[in-house]
Amino acid sequence: MEQSNQPKAVQFNVNQRSYSLEARPYVVVCVDGCADEYLDVTLAKGRMPNLQQMAAHGHRSKVRGALPSFTNVNNSSIVTGLPPSEHGIGGNFFYDTDKDEEVMMNSSSYLRCGTILAGAANAGRKVGVVTAKEKLRDILSHKLQGIAFSSEKAREAKMETHGIDNVETVVGEKTPEIYSPDASLYTLKSGVKLLEGGYADFLYLSLTDYMQHKYAPEEPESLSFYEAIDTELGKLAALGAIVGITADHGMNSKLDDNGQPNVIYLETLLNSKLGGGVRVILPITDPYVRHHGALGSFAVAYLPDPSKTPEVIQGLMEIDGITEVYDRKTAARKLELPEDRLGDLVAMSARNVVIGRSPEYHDLAALEGVLRSHGGRYEEMVPMVISHPLNAEALEESARDPRNFDIFHFTTNGTRLHEGV
Amino acid sequence: MEQSNQPKAVQFNVNQRSYSLEARPYVVVCVDGCADEYLDVTLAKGRMPNLQQMAAHGHRSKVRGALPSFTNVNNSSIVTGLPPSEHGIGGNFFYDTDKDEEVMMNSSSYLRCGTILAGAANAGRKVGVVTAKEKLRDILSHKLQGIAFSSEKAREAKMETHGIDNVETVVGEKTPEIYSPDASLYTLKSGVKLLEGGYADFLYLSLTDYMQHKYAPEEPESLSFYEAIDTELGKLAALGAIVGITADHGMNSKLDDNGQPNVIYLETLLNSKLGGGVRVILPITDPYVRHHGALGSFAVAYLPDPSKTPEVIQGLMEIDGITEVYDRKTAARKLELPEDRLGDLVAMSARNVVIGRSPEYHDLAALEGVLRSHGGRYEEMVPMVISHPLNAEALEESARDPRNFDIFHFTTNGTRLHEGV
Repeated sequence: MEQSNQPKAVQFNVNQRSYSLEARPYVVVCVDGCADEYLDVTLAKGRMPNLQQMAAHGHRSKVRGALPSFTNVNNSSIVTGLPPSEHGIGGNFFYDTDKDEEVMMNSSSYLRCGTILAGAANAGRKVGVVTAKEKLRDILSHKLQGIAFSSEKAREAKMETHGIDNVETVVGEKTPEIYSPDASLYTLKSGVKLLEGGYADFLYLSLTDYMQHKYAPEEPESLSFYEAIDTELGKLAALGAIVGITADHGMNSKLDDNGQPNVIYLETLLNSKLGGGVRVILPITDPYVRHHGALGSFAVAYLPDPSKTPEVIQGLMEIDGITEVYDRKTAARKLELPEDRLGDLVAMSARNVVIGRSPEYHDLAALEGVLRSHGGRYEEMVPMVISHPLNAEALEESARDPRNFDIFHFTTNGTRLHEGV
Repeated sequence: MEQSNQPKAVQFNVNQRSYSLEARPYVVVCVDGCADEYLDVTLAKGRMPNLQQMAAHGHRSKVRGALPSFTNVNNSSIVTGLPPSEHGIGGNFFYDTDKDEEVMMNSSSYLRCGTILAGAANAGRKVGVVTAKEKLRDILSHKLQGIAFSSEKAREAKMETHGIDNVETVVGEKTPEIYSPDASLYTLKSGVKLLEGGYADFLYLSLTDYMQHKYAPEEPESLSFYEAIDTELGKLAALGAIVGITADHGMNSKLDDNGQPNVIYLETLLNSKLGGGVRVILPITDPYVRHHGALGSFAVAYLPDPSKTPEVIQGLMEIDGITEVYDRKTAARKLELPEDRLGDLVAMSARNVVIGRSPEYHDLAALEGVLRSHGGRYEEMVPMVISHPLNAEALEESARDPRNFDIFHFTTNGTRLHEGV
């Protein structure tokens, strides 16, 4: 307790990469579902003054996320610095053929490597992880000696299991409703309080995309939401942190010209061609389907006769709205996915098209006329903003094919002045 | 000569679409090679105040260009409102198998439909087309009763052939050097003078991407260039025009981790596999190769034995940096390309990778250590900015899968108040 609250300068290696931290706080924020358009539109209206300053004096560019462009996949990539082929989380769900079970990959037991967060903690930094959704907490806190809680279950956090007690008192606000803008804002406010109170000096804050699923960038609700995000980003920067911001995936409207959900029911379609026995897995499926109806632009199919895969692929490529289809090996190679957790084929759909299983499987009425979703190629590119200028080396890297899961690298190594590196 | 200089409200149909123009000027600008990052970075620094106002009070979003993401292809799409499968221009070059000749598609004789520009002129609007590069003039002025000249050859424009005399006097500046920022700025300045002087009231201004090939968004030369573009955009808006801005394609650095051009020599590679006889066409090739060395992220291959296409595709998909490969039919369908002007297969490469023919074919030394280029999937998404708000119908459309070649539609129909439409 006698020790200074000053963050320690440390260096550590995680997954074959080195991270060099100065004696100052770092905060990485994953703005879930933050298509670049949200920043463009809110910035244009002058309602993100802090982000504007970061972009003007720090760095703004676009980075490529991991496919499928889903939350678990990309959060796992961000905290490990690796593509899904290496960390093992290729979706929220996969089908375990041995057990004949559709398995949810919310547990860190599916993670095949360590995290930058655990690495920073082991190196002596005070690490704080806040995620809007409880579902992510287990993966993000994998082997972590530090603080990790979700906004969703903030009031349940306990010192022994979450590294912190009395979150509501620390944050000064009650646990928010998960289907609300507050779930994300609570995550950011928690980050501010953890930093301010000296609870943590190396933070990962992962928001939820409830608002982005519901509202387009120019809608007043979205503008207010991003304005509120900006206020918290400003507080984090004012506390002396280097702030790195990216997204797990983008977001696009998936309605057709008549304003109806633009869905290709892949299981129905393949069953009618192949006479049944097809299983389609939608790896966007999770316990929180109210805002997207488990409809995304990426699907995995298991065929009754895998030897027919090439001709099935050929057939699928003739369907309007299906943009890319790959067999297991090609998908693993080209989309950087874990081959052993894939089906016989992988399909992606167009910017305004989603893939479903069958009409019965999805509750379109629950969508209330809005279907904004993600998962495919057109939600792959996301923004990256760093509050401080990149050094020359990092600036060069940022012009190659930088990834959203390089965000810890850019935020730490990338902002170091060049003497030490 | 007694007639008013007031633009006429007109309605006309071109290629199964209707365009409804109010009695005011319209200007569509194609900022060649304008990856969205150029706007983000220059805007953040406060150096595009006019564009900022347009985005704040009008509209800013992202639109999908035509593939391959090249200049001729997308300019042809923009002025026809159609994908390449319908207008016929799928690249700067194709291989005419009958004549055994590599044919350049600069001539409007390859265009398979009429243009919006000619349609507007026939409906009674005074149309002005200015292109930075002479190579585009023939296509853009196809059957046009109006003004059409290039900055490159401004001094050569004649009333009989270009619809205008003495361009240098009208613009008040000498013909610029084509490899310079001035080539694009001259195009915009010409637009301002044509509008101001009552020479035209419906304009298409198509810039050149020399600067974008050479400079990244944050480089001072690029910032100054975009600032100068912004000044001219402001003048166009101040003259009462509705201004619509988009790009033909984006732009990415194509260097490897050692700062060397990241090239896959496809003809060499396929010849060594197939024992010779392969012809690779790089449809980026044009008379202006100094800034990109004819290296882009899209290639077409003609095989000695087309029946081997499936296994060649399979092999190519195993190469790092090759992202998508399609046979002729699939490419025509999925990439909206004219099937009769395609080879046996089409290949695209990654965000930081280009495809070449053979090492001998390209002069990498001429690149002087910079290789920024385009042609593939990662240069497909481009910005769209409209100086005025979109009406409700157009706003909905802009959320589906809008295209850069809808720009005339959005700029005209999309900004109409709802009574008339």
